[in-house]
Amino acid sequence: MSQSIAVLGGDGRYLELIRQLQELPDTTIFLVGFDKLEQGFTGSKQVDFNDLEPEKLDVVILPITGTNHQGEIDTVFSDQQINLSKAWFNQLRPSTLIFTGITNDYLTSLTNELNLQLVALFDRDDVAIYNSIPTAEGTIMMAIEHTDFTIHSSRVIVVGFGRVGNTVANKFSALGAKVSVCARSIKDLARITEMGLTAIPLSRLHEYSDECDLLINTIPAQVVTKDSIQQLPSHALIYDLASKPGGTDFDYAKQRGIKAILARSLPGIVAPKTSGKILADVVKQFLNNGKEQN
Amino acid sequence: MSQSIAVLGGDGRYLELIRQLQELPDTTIFLVGFDKLEQGFTGSKQVDFNDLEPEKLDVVILPITGTNHQGEIDTVFSDQQINLSKAWFNQLRPSTLIFTGITNDYLTSLTNELNLQLVALFDRDDVAIYNSIPTAEGTIMMAIEHTDFTIHSSRVIVVGFGRVGNTVANKFSALGAKVSVCARSIKDLARITEMGLTAIPLSRLHEYSDECDLLINTIPAQVVTKDSIQQLPSHALIYDLASKPGGTDFDYAKQRGIKAILARSLPGIVAPKTSGKILADVVKQFLNNGKEQN
Repeated sequence: MSQSIAVLGGDGRYLELIRQLQELPDTTIFLVGFDKLEQGFTGSKQVDFNDLEPEKLDVVILPITGTNHQGEIDTVFSDQQINLSKAWFNQLRPSTLIFTGITNDYLTSLTNELNLQLVALFDRDDVAIYNSIPTAEGTIMMAIEHTDFTIHSSRVIVVGFGRVGNTVANKFSALGAKVSVCARSIKDLARITEMGLTAIPLSRLHEYSDECDLLINTIPAQVVTKDSIQQLPSHALIYDLASKPGGTDFDYAKQRGIKAILARSLPGIVAPKTSGKILADVVKQFLNNGKEQN
Repeated sequence: MSQSIAVLGGDGRYLELIRQLQELPDTTIFLVGFDKLEQGFTGSKQVDFNDLEPEKLDVVILPITGTNHQGEIDTVFSDQQINLSKAWFNQLRPSTLIFTGITNDYLTSLTNELNLQLVALFDRDDVAIYNSIPTAEGTIMMAIEHTDFTIHSSRVIVVGFGRVGNTVANKFSALGAKVSVCARSIKDLARITEMGLTAIPLSRLHEYSDECDLLINTIPAQVVTKDSIQQLPSHALIYDLASKPGGTDFDYAKQRGIKAILARSLPGIVAPKTSGKILADVVKQFLNNGKEQN
């Protein structure tokens, strides 16, 4: 059974994604928004958005950022302005699978209303855990680059023990840092202790921050507050990995002269190929499951 | 018993070294070649080289690079030209301890002839092992920065299992890379296997290099030769950490389009503070031992 996939826009990560999708049997791939790309993709068809026939598509892959609230999408490799209107979505078949990285009200409510299948890849646990690897490596890179001391022997506090915090704590510990992890639940605090790391209840972060060279936040809420920042040694650095606007009182950090960095999209920056492969693996898994069910 | 220490030139690492030496009791520190430094050192005396009285010095600390073959030293924080002539060394007392990072014929033969005590810090096993930590971290930083894939799951071959190779293999493995190590001796090959890594006899490197994303050489001899380089995948990277001129056939790598980087002085670049502390610890140990003996 042949299938048609349209990739609409996207960044460097999508080059590997496209490469991997090309290996699927009986698959036609339409690329929209890649016209400025120097390397060509043999086996894929570069088409104009207006020449696409939505009703014939089995799979639509939107950029990782999805659409904005007007339905416009990011096209890094094109100057084209692409707008995915309700009318356009309405031409898709109910069986069409729509992938995005993250979703928003526009995309979620529109696909709900039209009864279309939307998969937000970054909401999935597997994608988040796989992506936490390049995120942690990007954090390691920054920590080596921006400090005059080694990660080895340095005192690191990781705030949060979710999918990213767990990986970051693991990696820094593997490099010989003295890692403490801040978490709320007693289950997490037990696991942190089991891992040989120091467990700190989130409410007591400020009691520990005076012995900290690197503070890495992963919680998307205001948790790194004034009372913790004011205890930090003056050479300490804050990396905030939580989604915008982060969880750090950046104004206060600046006022105290503590360098605080809101680091975003590390996977796409430090490992676009691996990140693309992570997405490709999940998309392919969906396509295979679809086949098994049919 | 009071002591006089002269620090003659040096780079960023020496700022931490000086800071640590200042904590010694009853110690006068003379700094030569730090006149362009913005931050001052309270407790040390900035002096002109010509105002130094060599016969009164208990300790002389040369830059990590020692002297060149004419006796000139590197002064990163000064425009001054400083030349350490035989006549100058001859004014030192036989009990004066002279520290350098690395030595050369000029320095070694001159101090031998004048019966002076020269300590080449980088020749020491402890310093080399401690320094291998920032070297490995610098290599990790470059590997994250220069590739589009994660270290995690990548295939790394470390050539050499000395003080640096051992640490580098450990750290990459800790980050989830699939690490193989090339060594000559059966003892090293056994240890590599015990560590859960893949052991490759050095003479068979070319049989394994086709499955390699990162090749890291630590042996200061021509060991990464044409036959190994020609098997590497085209996306592979070579980092050569061995002292100049490295152990890689750089001409052939270039011809094949394989990126090969001779990375030098990583500790001073990525962790000058830690590197300075490593040197300070050893120097202080020498000074304490001297006291115990007297």
